[in-house]
Amino acid sequence: MIARDPDELLGEARHGSRSALARLITYVESGGANQRATIARAYRAPAPYVVGLTGPPGAGKSTLTDRLLATVLAGGTLEDEPVDEIGVLCVDPSSPFTGGAILGDRIRMQDHATNDRVFIRSMATRGHLGGLALAVPDAVRVLGAAGFALVFVETVGVGQMEVDVASAADTTVVVTNPGWGDAMQANKAGLLEVADIFVINKADRAGLRETRRDLEQMLDLGTKKDPRPPILETVATDGSGVDALWSAIVAHRRLLRGDRREEHRDTQARAELDRVLAVMLRARVGELAAGRAYAEQIARLRAGETDPYLAAEALLSES
Amino acid sequence: MIARDPDELLGEARHGSRSALARLITYVESGGANQRATIARAYRAPAPYVVGLTGPPGAGKSTLTDRLLATVLAGGTLEDEPVDEIGVLCVDPSSPFTGGAILGDRIRMQDHATNDRVFIRSMATRGHLGGLALAVPDAVRVLGAAGFALVFVETVGVGQMEVDVASAADTTVVVTNPGWGDAMQANKAGLLEVADIFVINKADRAGLRETRRDLEQMLDLGTKKDPRPPILETVATDGSGVDALWSAIVAHRRLLRGDRREEHRDTQARAELDRVLAVMLRARVGELAAGRAYAEQIARLRAGETDPYLAAEALLSES
Repeated sequence: MIARDPDELLGEARHGSRSALARLITYVESGGANQRATIARAYRAPAPYVVGLTGPPGAGKSTLTDRLLATVLAGGTLEDEPVDEIGVLCVDPSSPFTGGAILGDRIRMQDHATNDRVFIRSMATRGHLGGLALAVPDAVRVLGAAGFALVFVETVGVGQMEVDVASAADTTVVVTNPGWGDAMQANKAGLLEVADIFVINKADRAGLRETRRDLEQMLDLGTKKDPRPPILETVATDGSGVDALWSAIVAHRRLLRGDRREEHRDTQARAELDRVLAVMLRARVGELAAGRAYAEQIARLRAGETDPYLAAEALLSES
Repeated sequence: MIARDPDELLGEARHGSRSALARLITYVESGGANQRATIARAYRAPAPYVVGLTGPPGAGKSTLTDRLLATVLAGGTLEDEPVDEIGVLCVDPSSPFTGGAILGDRIRMQDHATNDRVFIRSMATRGHLGGLALAVPDAVRVLGAAGFALVFVETVGVGQMEVDVASAADTTVVVTNPGWGDAMQANKAGLLEVADIFVINKADRAGLRETRRDLEQMLDLGTKKDPRPPILETVATDGSGVDALWSAIVAHRRLLRGDRREEHRDTQARAELDRVLAVMLRARVGELAAGRAYAEQIARLRAGETDPYLAAEALLSES
């Protein structure tokens, strides 16, 4: 791959070049000389509106995204703004298990993949400092700089990594299925933190009532979100409930663009900066661990001559 | 609470004072003047052997721990070493949801709670810098310094926090139940990272074969552990399979005390140091975020005048 100037590529991407856009996302994903230049330009453009869809594998996120794309493409506007182009980022932090799943997603979305108003990209962990937790927000910004007003980010799973990825979304939809009490129970803290909207997809299956009850209880006990996240029901395979889901997304967006606009932007800027700060500081730990002073402290720890707190302070004061 | 000298308390704890021991754990848990002095002494004593039990709420970890206690108390030795006293730390990182669960655990273990060879303590997030991820290993070391050769650490959940807590264990047992395919699927990366032994508890219930098959597949695809973690079946309520579980734990311990002793100790020392380094660096992010330079960078980010990478570098170079 011959490196090309990010400015030039961005100009081409704005004029509809998908290959230029793909190249820019590769830059932010894989590090290297053009990463910083691409990021610098991307963050100086307005951010697109980002809808996150997250949930365990098999929940039906791709089919749901596909249906939402159809709804938006048919409607043509995002409430007050026209939507010419829609970006879709498919993120699976738990690779190497997921090559197949991502491929499957692509195939299922193939009708829209050939629609020239839709740009679909799978993202996997690569050379980016900080991995997907940083590469995904950066790719979102690249899409924004290329003129995309709306981006869907589809994330597999509901662990810490997905919480980080979701923090790049403006509106986060958590997708569950009937009968998933245990999976939700195991991740309730993360779910409550990220969800603006809950969807019980495959709502025509047994166990719907119990799952709704579990979700309601979880919200009763622990949500800090205001307004309380609605719980919607969909059957993505036949499209039932998808229009109502889109309405709920638009309603949440309206909130963020109204009174809470300043607060939301401030929160987003802080989340972006804290993510990068945390990653840079983690990289410091890696650098420290490669040094001779670290090896000496490990030897002293093993000999019972120090404790991890003293050892860490010694390393940080020396560095 | 009147603060007392950690040296004096440690002397009393070594002579069997449970209240002195409880006070020392409170010191490492809640920060303050005596935390560092307690930690300094604790890490200069030999570490106890730590068995971690982790799994979602309701998996039966407490009943299983209770049965394992009975097995060890009846046998009286840990292979080659006598076991006079056993520590049990019950950790639930997902509080505030769990006051009830911890109380329930205590009640279920009450037979052994009144056995003067057993010390049981629930741990919740408090003032400790770094929370439970540091407080639990510190408490384990306090138990070691007080003369406990064996400590069980029971942790609710299987997310990142539990991975951190589990890294303080020598042998980690992941407890599942028949029918928990989804919960496992959602956390497979974490499970594969921590599990030395898998247990399917409540093995008399429907779905055993499917769960075993799911676990075997997960191990086929992703385990880096050598030897491959065994999958055992137990019914904790009637004690079935508990002796075999204890044998598997002892077999894993034998491995760690044999050829791999040096490697294991090195890994442990690095894990301890990296945990503390990471926490201290996270605290740095918090300090940075409270400063005026941070507020300025946020304003510039919101105005599109900079990007998070430049902003973070500016903050780190100034600090």
